[in-house]
Amino acid sequence: MIIVMAVNAIDDDIQRVVSHVEEMGFQTKIMRDSVPVIINVIGDEQGMQREQFSLLPKVENVIKILKPYKLASREFKKENTKVEVRGSVLGGSSIVIIAGPCSVENEGQLLLIAKAVKASGASLLRGGAFKPRTSPYSFQGLGKEGLKLLAKAREETGLGIVTEVIDTTELDTVMEYADLLQVGSRNMYNTKLLRELSKVKKPILLKRNFSATLNEFLMSAEYLLSGGNDQVILCERGIRSFVEYSRNTLDLNIIPAIKQVSHLPIIVDPSHGTGRSDLIIPMSRAAVAAGADGLLIEVHPYPPEAYSDGEQSLTPDAFQQLMKEVKAVAQAIGRSI
Amino acid sequence: MIIVMAVNAIDDDIQRVVSHVEEMGFQTKIMRDSVPVIINVIGDEQGMQREQFSLLPKVENVIKILKPYKLASREFKKENTKVEVRGSVLGGSSIVIIAGPCSVENEGQLLLIAKAVKASGASLLRGGAFKPRTSPYSFQGLGKEGLKLLAKAREETGLGIVTEVIDTTELDTVMEYADLLQVGSRNMYNTKLLRELSKVKKPILLKRNFSATLNEFLMSAEYLLSGGNDQVILCERGIRSFVEYSRNTLDLNIIPAIKQVSHLPIIVDPSHGTGRSDLIIPMSRAAVAAGADGLLIEVHPYPPEAYSDGEQSLTPDAFQQLMKEVKAVAQAIGRSI
Amino acid sequence: MIIVMAVNAIDDDIQRVVSHVEEMGFQTKIMRDSVPVIINVIGDEQGMQREQFSLLPKVENVIKILKPYKLASREFKKENTKVEVRGSVLGGSSIVIIAGPCSVENEGQLLLIAKAVKASGASLLRGGAFKPRTSPYSFQGLGKEGLKLLAKAREETGLGIVTEVIDTTELDTVMEYADLLQVGSRNMYNTKLLRELSKVKKPILLKRNFSATLNEFLMSAEYLLSGGNDQVILCERGIRSFVEYSRNTLDLNIIPAIKQVSHLPIIVDPSHGTGRSDLIIPMSRAAVAAGADGLLIEVHPYPPEAYSDGEQSLTPDAFQQLMKEVKAVAQAIGRSI
Amino acid sequence: MIIVMAVNAIDDDIQRVVSHVEEMGFQTKIMRDSVPVIINVIGDEQGMQREQFSLLPKVENVIKILKPYKLASREFKKENTKVEVRGSVLGGSSIVIIAGPCSVENEGQLLLIAKAVKASGASLLRGGAFKPRTSPYSFQGLGKEGLKLLAKAREETGLGIVTEVIDTTELDTVMEYADLLQVGSRNMYNTKLLRELSKVKKPILLKRNFSATLNEFLMSAEYLLSGGNDQVILCERGIRSFVEYSRNTLDLNIIPAIKQVSHLPIIVDPSHGTGRSDLIIPMSRAAVAAGADGLLIEVHPYPPEAYSDGEQSLTPDAFQQLMKEVKAVAQAIGRSI
Repeated sequence: MIIVMAVNAIDDDIQRVVSHVEEMGFQTKIMRDSVPVIINVIGDEQGMQREQFSLLPKVENVIKILKPYKLASREFKKENTKVEVRGSVLGGSSIVIIAGPCSVENEGQLLLIAKAVKASGASLLRGGAFKPRTSPYSFQGLGKEGLKLLAKAREETGLGIVTEVIDTTELDTVMEYADLLQVGSRNMYNTKLLRELSKVKKPILLKRNFSATLNEFLMSAEYLLSGGNDQVILCERGIRSFVEYSRNTLDLNIIPAIKQVSHLPIIVDPSHGTGRSDLIIPMSRAAVAAGADGLLIEVHPYPPEAYSDGEQSLTPDAFQQLMKEVKAVAQAIGRSI
Repeated sequence: MIIVMAVNAIDDDIQRVVSHVEEMGFQTKIMRDSVPVIINVIGDEQGMQREQFSLLPKVENVIKILKPYKLASREFKKENTKVEVRGSVLGGSSIVIIAGPCSVENEGQLLLIAKAVKASGASLLRGGAFKPRTSPYSFQGLGKEGLKLLAKAREETGLGIVTEVIDTTELDTVMEYADLLQVGSRNMYNTKLLRELSKVKKPILLKRNFSATLNEFLMSAEYLLSGGNDQVILCERGIRSFVEYSRNTLDLNIIPAIKQVSHLPIIVDPSHGTGRSDLIIPMSRAAVAAGADGLLIEVHPYPPEAYSDGEQSLTPDAFQQLMKEVKAVAQAIGRSI
Repeated sequence: MIIVMAVNAIDDDIQRVVSHVEEMGFQTKIMRDSVPVIINVIGDEQGMQREQFSLLPKVENVIKILKPYKLASREFKKENTKVEVRGSVLGGSSIVIIAGPCSVENEGQLLLIAKAVKASGASLLRGGAFKPRTSPYSFQGLGKEGLKLLAKAREETGLGIVTEVIDTTELDTVMEYADLLQVGSRNMYNTKLLRELSKVKKPILLKRNFSATLNEFLMSAEYLLSGGNDQVILCERGIRSFVEYSRNTLDLNIIPAIKQVSHLPIIVDPSHGTGRSDLIIPMSRAAVAAGADGLLIEVHPYPPEAYSDGEQSLTPDAFQQLMKEVKAVAQAIGRSI
Repeated sequence: MIIVMAVNAIDDDIQRVVSHVEEMGFQTKIMRDSVPVIINVIGDEQGMQREQFSLLPKVENVIKILKPYKLASREFKKENTKVEVRGSVLGGSSIVIIAGPCSVENEGQLLLIAKAVKASGASLLRGGAFKPRTSPYSFQGLGKEGLKLLAKAREETGLGIVTEVIDTTELDTVMEYADLLQVGSRNMYNTKLLRELSKVKKPILLKRNFSATLNEFLMSAEYLLSGGNDQVILCERGIRSFVEYSRNTLDLNIIPAIKQVSHLPIIVDPSHGTGRSDLIIPMSRAAVAAGADGLLIEVHPYPPEAYSDGEQSLTPDAFQQLMKEVKAVAQAIGRSI
């Protein structure tokens, strides 16, 4: 951490800062004969708080040198992390497609979709059983019944199951059925849940909160990694902006930005990311072109009757078209689906 | 709900929509001899999803008439809700000041602050025992030990206790000690926690998520109200924007906007809302002038040594100054502190 | 325009609205026996203001049916507009690459870049002569001298010239030299400049303001179209958001969104859109995959010495790599470069 | 400017940076025996670009020490700047109220409003003659005719005139009539216009762009100051955010933030800032409580018939109520109106 003193700081001011730093157990290096005076604080930066120094008199600025995350960083692990989910590997050269309904509604609906997306080339089946809804009056998911239907669909199609866990109390139940545990956008900052998930032996799909910075996103991953779970897959799903024509603003820029600083795989959810079924195919092509390691797509046989998220669901036919188009783009950048 | 058909919709298109609406159990009124044709869907709007109609062919637009929240609305309850917390009433003509440290650190720190803020006129004591931190390496709070210290401070000063509950699993523990249960910004969308809190017999301080719209904010309150807990206090604490000079953008506009549509009291947290101790006093004056029912202020005896949030904490002396200034503004608008 | 009355509106309220509407020269259709009462205002919606009705007593909501833009809409013109710039056609099946330095610095720099980007396959040369800079102390461009150098580069390479016009007073000067006149992001709302440009006989490259909604973007295009200039190319260049890791948030979602509602071609500027040279190649691939009709790329032989925008400039070598990669993606989606 | 080298930078890397810095005419101080190595670049920082150094190999970070603005800073001028406009002083202890219609519509409307706002205590009259409208089909203002009406209103009431100049070509015309020249939000980045205005002998009201950072806002003021016009008044008028219940998000936090770093007066426009007439009075009270030096209020005798901005205009009666309420708040904080 570097402390930049005010231009008019005198020796006493500098001494006060140095004493404060040393009392906290850190060492200092001082560039004294320069304007401004600069103090380099040496020690474990993860243990320092910016404000502990910035609030001292005549301190102009405090600059962190290290990134706030460690285990999630490329410095810590150079090669890409690969996460296996029931035979599919995320983070390798192959791009993994996860598809399925927003909510599991009933057996017929789920099996129909599962078979259709499998036929089109999806590798994993998504489906919500516990649903965190904005309104207490909306459908809240089938709960455990939904999980059982997902298990049945896995049995019939061989597709691994991706489903959300929304609270620590239902973690054991979801663990019984899921192959990949999803942390939803609204739970990205739920440190209690992250700590519990850091101890489980299943891979985690961590969705970016719709207002998360890159640092915050990776700090949530760090909660998982630091607790011992290194099977973490990131997922971009749109940020909140002033924009009026899409429910969220899908931020593909984070894909190459994450790849620069982290070894974790990252996939894209263009369904939530745009909220518009007519944008899903072009943005899926774009996500793959930008370097995404996978896609998460909502599919429903008849969207006007979906219990949730109909506006951003593809029909099985449209999903088939999506697969065809993203395969061509994947090939163009030297990857496969 | 009003369905606006496309200009080029023909009779068959209209009939398809009408049939769909009626199959779902709603009635219709049609303005047929107009361009465009307009269909009024009659029935319980809370049970309708916009997308169930917007996805049908030749539907141009679907407009909700009712607000998504009901129990939180002024239509449902005209007069202001008053919430009592250990003798202090929020939502009446008096403005309630809640003050204390971000984190409870130790007995000496807490008692010193509690006595100081009481002497300056605060009515309730805030203090974090369970802390949801961005970094897994940061101080996570004293936990139950912190709650005990808060209880001790209450015993010594008579101040009611405000503290956060971050997960359903620790709800019982926090219930034992707190007078007002805080739902933090990161948990505003945690529907599982909200459902649990809707069943308790203590008042709730619901902080706005830093990216929540007004509707989402009130829908979270609706979770509490619809479960049976009508002692809900809202709290504005800054939104995330592009702005670079404050940690968050304190959005005072929501105070009069909430007052228009809801009967619930709303207070303001200028400490988190700005993230800068030098902005807290002027923005506290502004919050009171805008109509806030209370303030939530972070106070620490020596901010550079605070375990958390030092940059946005006032010293006891600065807090005393704040009290003096906001009292004058309160009086100017016909309220008291 | 549809007026939704309040649920408790009585006959007098309805009559007041109807009279007001009719006095303004519009006709009405009323759905009277429904709750709420709905009034359809018939007439030229472009001439109505929402607020003229929404402010009347007992009016609950006023809904526009038509889009605010007309000439820019797909309803007005079904097929894609094609704009020719010195032999290159934007809006057809071919994707056009525009490249060059942020600022024209001197003859050597410009010719070196022009030849390099031409060799790699660029079709048009961009270069700033008049620069709108945040700081009055920054380099403000070579002015007319820069335009002359651009003309020289055109002569030597055959590349058409794209350059910005920042004020009406210098329009004549820029007209003499440019093949495609750029309206910068900061000038998208400059209606005076747009009106002047609507009368010229050269194509316009209209960059989206970094805070513009889709409707505002197309309304600026409408200024150009309604004045008589139908040679308009749109350009996405990043929006302002809370995100910290890119200078702007390149919003590729607008490409398919624009294609749905407008016939105008749209290109993408990933240099400004991300502000990071290491994101330009992946985001260029993504832009092409999303359906962009062209790219605008900043190239500089030695970015650390660029007079402006060095952080987001590619070297000629990196640009060559970009061309190779975007060509492959273009081919995958059935287009060419 | 401080250059932080990468942890793995070797002597050659450091030497390369030092040579580069010295070639550019700056001196260096090096903290060599520390990790990381830190280089302090000494010289006029206003002349340095961050990217000139950040792009060199093994440079980790480049930190600016000085603020980008100079003449607008408190370091340059300690005491508050006072700007006189036809007898009213902005920036002193008195708070100045500017009121009037969004657009000048006709003589009757303008005189009625001018007399009403004068009677209620306004000091200056605002009114738009040249209007920058989103739609080319909307009313664009009466132009010079509007200016003449404003002059007539001044004659009859003695109120000084505040009106917008939207382009350099009409500057001379507006100069003839206005007492205070307004630069609108859309023109805050129009450096050409700012340069012209920096040479005139009239005070400037510089409105913040709805997406401007504090630094950008003050850099636009710096354009005016550096050209020789030191009569600059800043105006906050709402920023663009994700918020749905107000047209813009009035950001009062900028008032105390500006007061910390700049000597310039700052006023607030709650009409544009909220876009809702029912929020104007509470937010005006809040603006004064936060430390604003003035208010800019839209007033119209019958808002539903206003040519523009009816939704955010107060009636003369409501304006009178506003004056009463803000006077009380002003008094509470030791100021007068």
